[in-house]
Amino acid sequence: MADHEYPTALGASSLKTITLLGRDLAEDVMGKVSFGELAFWLATQRRPEPGEVRVFEAVLAALADHGFTPTAIVTRLTYLSAPDSIQGALAAGLLGGGSRFLGVTEDCGRFLHDALSGVDGALPVDDAGWDELALAIVRKARQDGKFVPGLGHHVHKEGDPRTPRLMRIAAEENLFGPHLALFAAIGRVHPAVLGKTLPLNGAGVCGAALADLGLPLELLRAVALLARTAGLIGQLAEELRHPVGNEIFLSVDLNNRPVEPDPYPHRRD
Amino acid sequence: MADHEYPTALGASSLKTITLLGRDLAEDVMGKVSFGELAFWLATQRRPEPGEVRVFEAVLAALADHGFTPTAIVTRLTYLSAPDSIQGALAAGLLGGGSRFLGVTEDCGRFLHDALSGVDGALPVDDAGWDELALAIVRKARQDGKFVPGLGHHVHKEGDPRTPRLMRIAAEENLFGPHLALFAAIGRVHPAVLGKTLPLNGAGVCGAALADLGLPLELLRAVALLARTAGLIGQLAEELRHPVGNEIFLSVDLNNRPVEPDPYPHRRD
Amino acid sequence: MADHEYPTALGASSLKTITLLGRDLAEDVMGKVSFGELAFWLATQRRPEPGEVRVFEAVLAALADHGFTPTAIVTRLTYLSAPDSIQGALAAGLLGGGSRFLGVTEDCGRFLHDALSGVDGALPVDDAGWDELALAIVRKARQDGKFVPGLGHHVHKEGDPRTPRLMRIAAEENLFGPHLALFAAIGRVHPAVLGKTLPLNGAGVCGAALADLGLPLELLRAVALLARTAGLIGQLAEELRHPVGNEIFLSVDLNNRPVEPDPYPHRRD
Amino acid sequence: MADHEYPTALGASSLKTITLLGRDLAEDVMGKVSFGELAFWLATQRRPEPGEVRVFEAVLAALADHGFTPTAIVTRLTYLSAPDSIQGALAAGLLGGGSRFLGVTEDCGRFLHDALSGVDGALPVDDAGWDELALAIVRKARQDGKFVPGLGHHVHKEGDPRTPRLMRIAAEENLFGPHLALFAAIGRVHPAVLGKTLPLNGAGVCGAALADLGLPLELLRAVALLARTAGLIGQLAEELRHPVGNEIFLSVDLNNRPVEPDPYPHRRD
Repeated sequence: MADHEYPTALGASSLKTITLLGRDLAEDVMGKVSFGELAFWLATQRRPEPGEVRVFEAVLAALADHGFTPTAIVTRLTYLSAPDSIQGALAAGLLGGGSRFLGVTEDCGRFLHDALSGVDGALPVDDAGWDELALAIVRKARQDGKFVPGLGHHVHKEGDPRTPRLMRIAAEENLFGPHLALFAAIGRVHPAVLGKTLPLNGAGVCGAALADLGLPLELLRAVALLARTAGLIGQLAEELRHPVGNEIFLSVDLNNRPVEPDPYPHRRD
Repeated sequence: MADHEYPTALGASSLKTITLLGRDLAEDVMGKVSFGELAFWLATQRRPEPGEVRVFEAVLAALADHGFTPTAIVTRLTYLSAPDSIQGALAAGLLGGGSRFLGVTEDCGRFLHDALSGVDGALPVDDAGWDELALAIVRKARQDGKFVPGLGHHVHKEGDPRTPRLMRIAAEENLFGPHLALFAAIGRVHPAVLGKTLPLNGAGVCGAALADLGLPLELLRAVALLARTAGLIGQLAEELRHPVGNEIFLSVDLNNRPVEPDPYPHRRD
Repeated sequence: MADHEYPTALGASSLKTITLLGRDLAEDVMGKVSFGELAFWLATQRRPEPGEVRVFEAVLAALADHGFTPTAIVTRLTYLSAPDSIQGALAAGLLGGGSRFLGVTEDCGRFLHDALSGVDGALPVDDAGWDELALAIVRKARQDGKFVPGLGHHVHKEGDPRTPRLMRIAAEENLFGPHLALFAAIGRVHPAVLGKTLPLNGAGVCGAALADLGLPLELLRAVALLARTAGLIGQLAEELRHPVGNEIFLSVDLNNRPVEPDPYPHRRD
Repeated sequence: MADHEYPTALGASSLKTITLLGRDLAEDVMGKVSFGELAFWLATQRRPEPGEVRVFEAVLAALADHGFTPTAIVTRLTYLSAPDSIQGALAAGLLGGGSRFLGVTEDCGRFLHDALSGVDGALPVDDAGWDELALAIVRKARQDGKFVPGLGHHVHKEGDPRTPRLMRIAAEENLFGPHLALFAAIGRVHPAVLGKTLPLNGAGVCGAALADLGLPLELLRAVALLARTAGLIGQLAEELRHPVGNEIFLSVDLNNRPVEPDPYPHRRD
């Protein structure tokens, strides 16, 4: 008898078969399940409906690549430095997927979820109701000196094109749920509280849509990282043909300016 | 004028639009391009045909998760140790995607590509021709004391179910190209040279199929890592609900046995 | 004129010289500055006194290796899986250096620093004064339902041998500052508040000592990771001669038990 | 009885003691063993002599930081992007420690070791003998179209100041062994073969010195990574006080130039 047993519904092999999520991998998954569907299935352990897959894949497309972000630059520089280890270049890029550049999706999903969980009784049934709830939430955030995640964008100051598009797709698939409803209401009411109009950004709407789809909140950032893995492969595909990594490196290194160290003080509080 | 310019066909933003691969991200990609298609497009910078997407996604399904591999265990243990950093858990898992456990796909694709590149004149047109070529290649590998990548599997000794399935899917989509043809022929002829019958494994057939699809050889391992990212998200989804990481850790730690160090010798060659 | 300039006191090269921290690397650093001293210097940008180096190196020794921790297992498994990339094996191990297993050092340093920063007027001058302060702090933590970092150890229930040792070394070097004083006082007074006696653990005392040395709080975890890098090299040195990675992997994989997926619910809050 | 046992000479704990490398950690290591000595001990599982520690620490100093290398930029950008995960920033930087930027140390150590292993009979006893051996080796490398690792530097074209310095330190400690002797001879004889004079670079001489010290060849790169971990902490210490990461990011992102994708061809070999 074994000391331990490790239950899993993921990949399992015997002499003649391989199962994944309780299905025959070769016959029932390969050639029949799209990669987006499979990723959703893995993340939620339930098979999604086609409409859910469409919304999910729209999110993945929205988050796959945003050009020369820190993560993209990191992957290119790591490939420059260690071309023998493509896994290192991808992993290094993903490590930039933290609170600042890729975290809004998770932050926004959690923020909306917490707000909805705090509602006593039934959720609103019309825009007026959602606006009322959103107003209370934005006021509270402002009172607490906190940002509302998903509001604002340094480039798309007049509106992030991904936001209305993802809302439309979710509506088409009848998956415009309470997280998206609340997020949209925040977009309508925040100017009255904050005194300025900010766009609902794409990373935020993705968090709202993923939360409506039932993705585990703990894995919203992981979904963004899956999208970004594809984007980083795109960065590597470009770097292979038209490399810029060395030029980026030299543009920093050749402009270094030696200065004296600036010592941290002894800390004697 | 800027010192430098960094050309890219990937994500680019202006006030009102975002483009990706030269398309309008919101209108032409989100909701219209599946994630598998997008990943293929990013990796090759060309939009694939539907049949190509189907073969590509079958490969991704085949490679997504193989149960409690080192990479899966690593992701679970890293999540146990640093639950605040989901990007770290995924990156750590991907770092196991090197030569031994995830590298067969790349090795096999390169091996077949090199063999095909070495052919003078036209490629074979029938099984007999492919068998002849395969025989020469297997003999040469044996002569050189090298393994033929993609041959053999520690569990599926009588045949890996993914192999015939992927070949069938490729054939259905009219994408059974020279890499797959040569790989299939290796499966037929190797017993005569090696004196035993080995299965063509799933990782190998995936490399052959990806090479036939025109994926850059430098990125075959990256495609395997994309598939594995989805699989590792599945591992985390399970770990969140039914954690085994701590039990794995303790099963090692509690069975440690202190011994004396075994010094490396001074090297005085 | 360059668009940008990047000032740095770190490595800089010209045709005939290399400087580091404003010194001639070859003549003034190599052969004259120990690695512990150099690491301290790099982290604080000021050259430490010999006593500071001794305390710092005692901390590094205390944190270097704790046997088969998740980080050690992760490094061994990643090396098993990708032996071609030693940087990947080390990086993967370090990624476990998060909140749970390596974070206590940072948490404790920050906790003590915050407590000291909150003191109005002069700091205590004797044990009685420190005990009074510690009592207030432990009571407040208990009230807020928070743990006091650095208290408790799952093995060393009657006392962690590193704690008195590091305090003694700090005292010998006249570097027993307010963070250590407060930490020691917490050790004396907490039973009266918590109703049980917990050991002051080694990770915690290291955080206190590093804070007393003036290491930046943001880098306390980084110091622990530097120590652990040496430890992981030790793990690899053992794995090379007496490998256990494959046995660990198999002990999990062979004890897998296939179960049905346990679907996450749709979230319709 | 346990299923498995995992022997280790590294960290082990019981109720009252902690051992490391067979010693009492608190009493015999902390405060008595410097970090450089401990790292050497961990890597070789044998306690080094003081002279060995001095050479080893000179190597670590030589490799700790080289300014705005790709690894340094990567760590700064990852910290910018994910400041919540210092372990991610360090790990990402280390992942650049591959074949190109940090690999010379390992490559050179292995190259010299292989050359020495190929000598029939006794090793040379004087410079003339070493020159003869070096000449044969450089000629063979040139014949095979291979580079001699450790030769050449893009900045220090007239000589890398670390090289004579490390050789002098090794000689002072009576640790100038065959690897260094052969490396020095390569420096003397290569112009006659290559038709130009190249400097013996610092990364290369470090590999030679480490090999003479008996460090496992498989871990030479790991030693370079340990040195670099300290250097990256220095980079983070600067980034915290005088951040340049965002400016580096913007210097790339704002100079992006959208172009059309450049499709990879279908591969039909």
